[in-house]
Amino acid sequence: MASAFTQIEGGVTAPRGFRASAVRCGIKSDGNTSLDLALVASEVPAVAAATFTTNRIKAAPVRVSANHLRSPETRAVVVNSGNANACTGTAGIQNAKRMAKTVGQHGHWPERQTLVCSTGRIGRQLPIEKIELAIPELVAGLGAGAGSAFARAILTSDTFHKEVAIEFSVADQRIRIGGAAKGAGMIDPNMATMLCFVTTDAAIEKRNLQRLFAQSVEQSFNCITVDGDMSTNDTAICLANGSCGVPVLSSADETYSTFGEALNFVTRNLARMIVEDGEGVTKFVEVHVKGAATYQDARKAAEAIANSKLLKCSWYGEDPNWGRIMAAVGYSSARVREEMLDIFLDGVVAVEHGMASSTPEEKLKEILRNEKFTVTVDLHLGSAEYRVFTTDLTPEYVRFNMGE
Amino acid sequence: MASAFTQIEGGVTAPRGFRASAVRCGIKSDGNTSLDLALVASEVPAVAAATFTTNRIKAAPVRVSANHLRSPETRAVVVNSGNANACTGTAGIQNAKRMAKTVGQHGHWPERQTLVCSTGRIGRQLPIEKIELAIPELVAGLGAGAGSAFARAILTSDTFHKEVAIEFSVADQRIRIGGAAKGAGMIDPNMATMLCFVTTDAAIEKRNLQRLFAQSVEQSFNCITVDGDMSTNDTAICLANGSCGVPVLSSADETYSTFGEALNFVTRNLARMIVEDGEGVTKFVEVHVKGAATYQDARKAAEAIANSKLLKCSWYGEDPNWGRIMAAVGYSSARVREEMLDIFLDGVVAVEHGMASSTPEEKLKEILRNEKFTVTVDLHLGSAEYRVFTTDLTPEYVRFNMGE
Repeated sequence: MASAFTQIEGGVTAPRGFRASAVRCGIKSDGNTSLDLALVASEVPAVAAATFTTNRIKAAPVRVSANHLRSPETRAVVVNSGNANACTGTAGIQNAKRMAKTVGQHGHWPERQTLVCSTGRIGRQLPIEKIELAIPELVAGLGAGAGSAFARAILTSDTFHKEVAIEFSVADQRIRIGGAAKGAGMIDPNMATMLCFVTTDAAIEKRNLQRLFAQSVEQSFNCITVDGDMSTNDTAICLANGSCGVPVLSSADETYSTFGEALNFVTRNLARMIVEDGEGVTKFVEVHVKGAATYQDARKAAEAIANSKLLKCSWYGEDPNWGRIMAAVGYSSARVREEMLDIFLDGVVAVEHGMASSTPEEKLKEILRNEKFTVTVDLHLGSAEYRVFTTDLTPEYVRFNMGE
Repeated sequence: MASAFTQIEGGVTAPRGFRASAVRCGIKSDGNTSLDLALVASEVPAVAAATFTTNRIKAAPVRVSANHLRSPETRAVVVNSGNANACTGTAGIQNAKRMAKTVGQHGHWPERQTLVCSTGRIGRQLPIEKIELAIPELVAGLGAGAGSAFARAILTSDTFHKEVAIEFSVADQRIRIGGAAKGAGMIDPNMATMLCFVTTDAAIEKRNLQRLFAQSVEQSFNCITVDGDMSTNDTAICLANGSCGVPVLSSADETYSTFGEALNFVTRNLARMIVEDGEGVTKFVEVHVKGAATYQDARKAAEAIANSKLLKCSWYGEDPNWGRIMAAVGYSSARVREEMLDIFLDGVVAVEHGMASSTPEEKLKEILRNEKFTVTVDLHLGSAEYRVFTTDLTPEYVRFNMGE
């Protein structure tokens, strides 16, 4: 499936009609010279889809963007890093709206055609004057070569910027999809936000884009976990501006499902980069639960395994500790029959019918020495399955997250 | 309430008519010279109450003890450390039953009057011959002075043994309660089991003891969390043998509720010792959520805070990171209204109406420098509350749990 898509350069500016810009306006602390304000905009009105954090404490930009998303047309997304604009009350809401309004004034479109994202420290008011002062330069600087600058400006303590772009053919025309993301969890104190921005020059109705993009997020960003914490600011946005020349995709077309797969390819790649950028992480583990009675059971079991602190420590120690896998499945509340349960490490059987297999301990240890491995649990109770990508838990993780 | 109880020596052998014994039979690895087999027994038939792990993967001794608990009379509990007898199939069940049977043969009581507990590595069969060979000496060694030896023999990697005993007056007679426990989580690889044994010379009906003891466990061991993992072997057992001379406690008496408070005092003390023995732990944090709409909401919010890896890292770093507290409450699924929410650190207001209070950051940092502090979240939505005791997350925790 992946082979049908050609990877290209340009990130969010790869699709036709999208331009980006990034500046440093001084939100981040004085010693920090990183970019901290970014903009991606479509030359023509686009349709937008988005998913937001399900945390009940939502940052101001999440509330404002959810409201602006109701506009049938969207032109841009403005993002600041260094301050989350969360737990900031009505002043925070006003500031998020001022960001959208000022971008619109300089870009010549209505306030509600700009979505807003913030990431950084919780509980401090945005330095809105600095941001407003920088916006004219930000809008004036929009260009087709600034995809990477955009991807860098949205970072907090990520160690590398994350972008991807692909192209695929439809009826002699080529559709492009680009994306950028920043990491969730394992990050600076207070800066545990996942942001994702996807652009495409496909022509698609807003409601169809929302459906496909929500599925795509569900199968990518919602399948990664580093520490199980969920931020007040998590946001994934997709803009489609129809500049590719291919007629509007409809759900009856074959192209429609190809486009969905292409979206999945982009979001799964970005999600994988986020996991791989976990601070202090040394192991990348795919947890695959299958044979579950229901999808919810598979998901609960997989997430319990992926979030077990004890298990994550033993992965760091390269200890094939299947007893902890059994325990995590057992307390996950997924239906399980101990005597049916098999566990595999990279396909090698570790547990058979709920008991130690005959595989030598040394062989299992060898697998754990790899930087990447898969834990497969077969519950043998049904046909539902679920996959999660996770990491080990390391002393470095603790040090990175212990504070200032 | 606590002041009504006099602390005394003797642990599980403090109450009249209880004797204990401990030997080393060679379950633990060769280099280890620790005690690994323990017994506590009543000179006269006692009634037993117990709560077991809710993990769906249950160790063999848990299954056997749950069955033996149906006997109206119980005489003893036999415990081994070094091997969990979990994920061991029908052979494991047979071995757990053989432990109970052999103890009964030498103590002269039926197999089902002995309960069985195991703690240690998951997935290996018990060296049942070694255990059976040691049981005659174990039973012969029963004595009133062996409470501490019992408390030491049940440990795996705990750094100190945990016991407590109290006495209180009822109608010119004195009732005694003794207890011993071993730690949960933060422990050796594969050895994350919480075990608790309480003895009392009170005379009480089995069903009343079960009710009071279950409440007591709910308010103590179920309110502590170090890593959120739940073992396949967690067990808490209470034996009451009526040797104190006070008539049978009935639920109509005032003495009955005093006895309940005394049980709570014992279990909460043991639970606190377990938290304080967390490997590598440097902070002991009481999380208190109040003003919740329901008890379940209070509990979910408190547990989300107590289990957040990010928060636990920031406590280690002495960073008063209330943004992470807000985020944890928000994703806990407890009902919350951001603008109503207050947060206090040791009673000092950090968040007011969902936003930063005017308390200087430095003052909050000072509180975090204490070894113990309380995080209080007031949701202002109702009158339900919940308390959890937890710890920080440290690089040493990771190292202790990374494997062999």
